[in-house]
Amino acid sequence: MRRRNVKNAKERLLAQEEVMIFNPTDYKGKWHELFNNNNPIYLEIGMGKGKFIIKHAQTYPNHNYLGLEKYDSVILQATTKLQELSLDNLKLLNVDASNLLEIFQEGEVDGIYLNFSDPWPKARHAKRRLTSKKFLDIYRTILKKDGIIEFKTDNVDLFDYSVESFEENNYEILHLTRDLHSEAKDVITTEYEDKFSSKGNNICFLKARWK
Amino acid sequence: MRRRNVKNAKERLLAQEEVMIFNPTDYKGKWHELFNNNNPIYLEIGMGKGKFIIKHAQTYPNHNYLGLEKYDSVILQATTKLQELSLDNLKLLNVDASNLLEIFQEGEVDGIYLNFSDPWPKARHAKRRLTSKKFLDIYRTILKKDGIIEFKTDNVDLFDYSVESFEENNYEILHLTRDLHSEAKDVITTEYEDKFSSKGNNICFLKARWK
Repeated sequence: MRRRNVKNAKERLLAQEEVMIFNPTDYKGKWHELFNNNNPIYLEIGMGKGKFIIKHAQTYPNHNYLGLEKYDSVILQATTKLQELSLDNLKLLNVDASNLLEIFQEGEVDGIYLNFSDPWPKARHAKRRLTSKKFLDIYRTILKKDGIIEFKTDNVDLFDYSVESFEENNYEILHLTRDLHSEAKDVITTEYEDKFSSKGNNICFLKARWK
Repeated sequence: MRRRNVKNAKERLLAQEEVMIFNPTDYKGKWHELFNNNNPIYLEIGMGKGKFIIKHAQTYPNHNYLGLEKYDSVILQATTKLQELSLDNLKLLNVDASNLLEIFQEGEVDGIYLNFSDPWPKARHAKRRLTSKKFLDIYRTILKKDGIIEFKTDNVDLFDYSVESFEENNYEILHLTRDLHSEAKDVITTEYEDKFSSKGNNICFLKARWK
């Protein structure tokens, strides 16, 4: 995603206290208390401008959602949309996926969404991919047993890499398709996905469970 | 599948000359001549009593089908059904998958269906599985570029083994699901699949293409 430089993004973000969680490590093991219910908790890692997770939160009021985004200028755009919606079941975190273990207790998360993650195409950057062993191990720790990861991308190389990575790191692939939109009609999409898919390009998708 | 011992199965099969090909090696490289058209050719390996491939042949008159079954007592039951239908685009072969290279030329086949193949659960019998390296290599030889294999099973161990085997032997998995019937409504089923699925058990499915 192209990121615009937004002036005073950090300061402006701090003003969004209704939708942002600024001290996420304080909630480790207590996320259900924050939401004040025992509904399942889903994360989107790299939520971008938030279309996908906002739509999920609207569609499934009995699920809790946490949108994670490391770029403050990007998450700021999601907060603006969210201000008007006042969704009790969605909060945003301006954090990096490397810090997940400091934010969530073992088994605290029911599912994780990874949408159009940075492909980091160079081999020497493979460890930075959000589907690398390092991250899949972190996800497995915070996911509850039978917890699910759903991953979408238009990047075939990243998809091939990820299929192998899930297989090798103790996940079971439950569903895989290299043309999501041709088989499923009611897909909740991201901004990027709409743009890319409208050009006639395929979206690859997989759903995996740790075993 | 349970196989009944059918008296004089071989002799009775010989009488089914309209639907059976008794000298398949004679057609190597000439299957399109047999069908008298250039329509794509699909094989079902282990067609059993034939419900799946008969339905395909009826649904897609512009495709040619060859049903392979090594047990004569089983294939005999399919021929009986076929006699009444007189489908020009379906012929049956009483052969073993090990002989495929003697029957088909390189790239002569457009697609292969493997349905509920024998799981051969013992490790020492793994080579006999129809998704083992030996067979995947044979299929790749007779399939044309971009040729497709579709594989269905209710046996999770065989499915796990097969996913790995396809990945390791230069096939690209295009689609995978561990619950075919929940996502697809117009599945053409086998006899076994109907029985198994009606008990509420999941059917695993994958579609792969050689790369």
